[in-house]
Amino acid sequence: MTRVDRGFPVKEYRARLNAAQKMMASADLGALLLSTEPEIRYFSGFLTRFWESPTRPWYMLIPAQGNPIAVIPSIGGHLMAQTWIEDIRTWQSPDYSDDGVGLLSDTIRECVPEDGRIGVPSGPESCLRMPLANWDALRADMGTHRFTDDAGIVRSLRAVKSELEIAKIRQACAIAGSAFGDVHRLAALGDSLDRVFRRFQSACLEYGADWVGYLAGGAGPQGYLDVISPAAEVPLAFGDVLMLDTGVVWDGYYCDFDRNYAVGKPDKPSQSAYARLIEATDRAFETARPGATAAELFHAMNAVTSEKKSDGQPGRLGHGLGMQLTEGVSLIPDDHTVLEAGMVLTLEPVVTVSPGRFLVHEENIVVRNSGAEYLSNPASRKLPVLGECS
Amino acid sequence: MTRVDRGFPVKEYRARLNAAQKMMASADLGALLLSTEPEIRYFSGFLTRFWESPTRPWYMLIPAQGNPIAVIPSIGGHLMAQTWIEDIRTWQSPDYSDDGVGLLSDTIRECVPEDGRIGVPSGPESCLRMPLANWDALRADMGTHRFTDDAGIVRSLRAVKSELEIAKIRQACAIAGSAFGDVHRLAALGDSLDRVFRRFQSACLEYGADWVGYLAGGAGPQGYLDVISPAAEVPLAFGDVLMLDTGVVWDGYYCDFDRNYAVGKPDKPSQSAYARLIEATDRAFETARPGATAAELFHAMNAVTSEKKSDGQPGRLGHGLGMQLTEGVSLIPDDHTVLEAGMVLTLEPVVTVSPGRFLVHEENIVVRNSGAEYLSNPASRKLPVLGECS
Repeated sequence: MTRVDRGFPVKEYRARLNAAQKMMASADLGALLLSTEPEIRYFSGFLTRFWESPTRPWYMLIPAQGNPIAVIPSIGGHLMAQTWIEDIRTWQSPDYSDDGVGLLSDTIRECVPEDGRIGVPSGPESCLRMPLANWDALRADMGTHRFTDDAGIVRSLRAVKSELEIAKIRQACAIAGSAFGDVHRLAALGDSLDRVFRRFQSACLEYGADWVGYLAGGAGPQGYLDVISPAAEVPLAFGDVLMLDTGVVWDGYYCDFDRNYAVGKPDKPSQSAYARLIEATDRAFETARPGATAAELFHAMNAVTSEKKSDGQPGRLGHGLGMQLTEGVSLIPDDHTVLEAGMVLTLEPVVTVSPGRFLVHEENIVVRNSGAEYLSNPASRKLPVLGECS
Repeated sequence: MTRVDRGFPVKEYRARLNAAQKMMASADLGALLLSTEPEIRYFSGFLTRFWESPTRPWYMLIPAQGNPIAVIPSIGGHLMAQTWIEDIRTWQSPDYSDDGVGLLSDTIRECVPEDGRIGVPSGPESCLRMPLANWDALRADMGTHRFTDDAGIVRSLRAVKSELEIAKIRQACAIAGSAFGDVHRLAALGDSLDRVFRRFQSACLEYGADWVGYLAGGAGPQGYLDVISPAAEVPLAFGDVLMLDTGVVWDGYYCDFDRNYAVGKPDKPSQSAYARLIEATDRAFETARPGATAAELFHAMNAVTSEKKSDGQPGRLGHGLGMQLTEGVSLIPDDHTVLEAGMVLTLEPVVTVSPGRFLVHEENIVVRNSGAEYLSNPASRKLPVLGECS
């Protein structure tokens, strides 16, 4: 595995901040109020699995000028102080009388003039991570300040990755790729799917994953019925196609791709469906370059697969990828986002093999000025058979 | 490992629904609107790691009478149909023109009279998992219907566990306990902490974890500086105390406890701090019974440890546990929740060893009519030394 440094130099955070503040000026925003893990980490580098606990709200304020301000529970004070953030205000959470709302509104008042507008991410994929009662209390407390959406600033900033971010995603892809290379020894006829899932996660850890943020998959004759089920205690049977779809995390960045394996010699329909998946991926890969749109990638794949959407299928044929398993653009006919160099995407075509049963293939790419570049090591062009060397 | 069945019989979901509807009637609520993973799973059994993707909103409506209604993206249609939920309404998400708001408001109108009140979890630990813009659109669309908080119904229902839920948490505890038992072979002087973290996660998987939802910890002389940091590439040194704190998931239920290990013979202050942690845990264990309050458990521990709260420390001395790593009550002076049989809690005292450095201990218990019962196999009463059999 190539040596990739952890963390980012401070100049990377300054660049993100400067870009945000330029866009905030255009959108007439006096501050951005952030509350979710990726939003806060994007501007600070604050990385912890502690977000798994829903108890405490966390806030970050991006003022129109000056550095970000962390308004966070004291349990995070020490870790936040290890980042480049200097202005860290903490309260002892949980506090049933005031769980940070007072501290947050004081901080906002300090940074934003009375008639100022505060942008809160409000569009697709966003969510406000605080109790609704506290949100209402904050707005009531703020008087003439106006909360509005963030004009899509955070989403659009995060969509274009730096070289250091791309290196981390490539590292996550390499780790998952190594684990996929081991599936021939991790899974065999008769093994139950849940045991295969456990072994695969261990393999990801052995190859250097910090943790395995996502694993789903399925197995069945001529494919699977959905792509989000947890693993059942069901043995792999002759004629099954096994699919594993993983999001391995390395230094806070995800990969997101899958691999398919035939259990015993695959039948013709499965082989031919798999070939179409590879062909569809090729078409999207060739189409992906600056100036093309997300919708064009959808159509490039759909021209090969011509799927009707049905229950259990993802619906979109790929998406953005980075600090989250899925983020940013969606490869759907309605997403006319123009691709830029540095965007990291998944290509994820679907082919129905028999009623209700389908195969999904997924690769990760980065858009470069010269065209697309694979971050995942592309899958075999023929459906691999478990136990046969690929 | 004892054999524990996966899933729940339908009657368990019916009991949860009936209890909710009784409380809804008292609170004059025409429906509950749910949007988060644990809320929707609590009433349906819908279990998937796909929530890791923030793209799509998911909804469940609990009407005043009748069965829950799922209003979800079509990608989840097949999996939801495997649960006891029969009324499943899907849309193709993401949809940039209407990402489920229209379908949701139609469904609400069908279930709730025009002047009806719809309860949305809004209190501590809750969050509305949908873009703010869609929340505003939904409210604008609903006319005279009124959205209000859920009167704490979901939180209070989830706080008291059934025997089947307790068995799942015990299973998660047993898996983590087996992995903790292996730390003597997974970690040694000179091993870097990040490798120890990886090996420990693999051990949890080997012992049957579905996934490792949480792992944090630290190592240092006379303890650690916080309890939420990811693992650094720093070797274990002679005199360190190593702590691993894990939330292993089995069938959708978490454990949450830690273990401490001395690297080489521990110094007196560390030994004595550890002894006080065990004593504090004993006091809380003895105090925990129906009728005692969360605050009383806090005071039982604090009487032994008499800690001043400081940055990096958890602040509370335990919390509820179940479908989430932390949920429900907090062991703090202000939480006067009266304990009931079936509540599952963590006991998590803290002792400062030297300025900024502290030790944390954690066990998992269930409150029974006769008193507390350990779900985690209690830790050694002396600080274990790595490499020495405990």
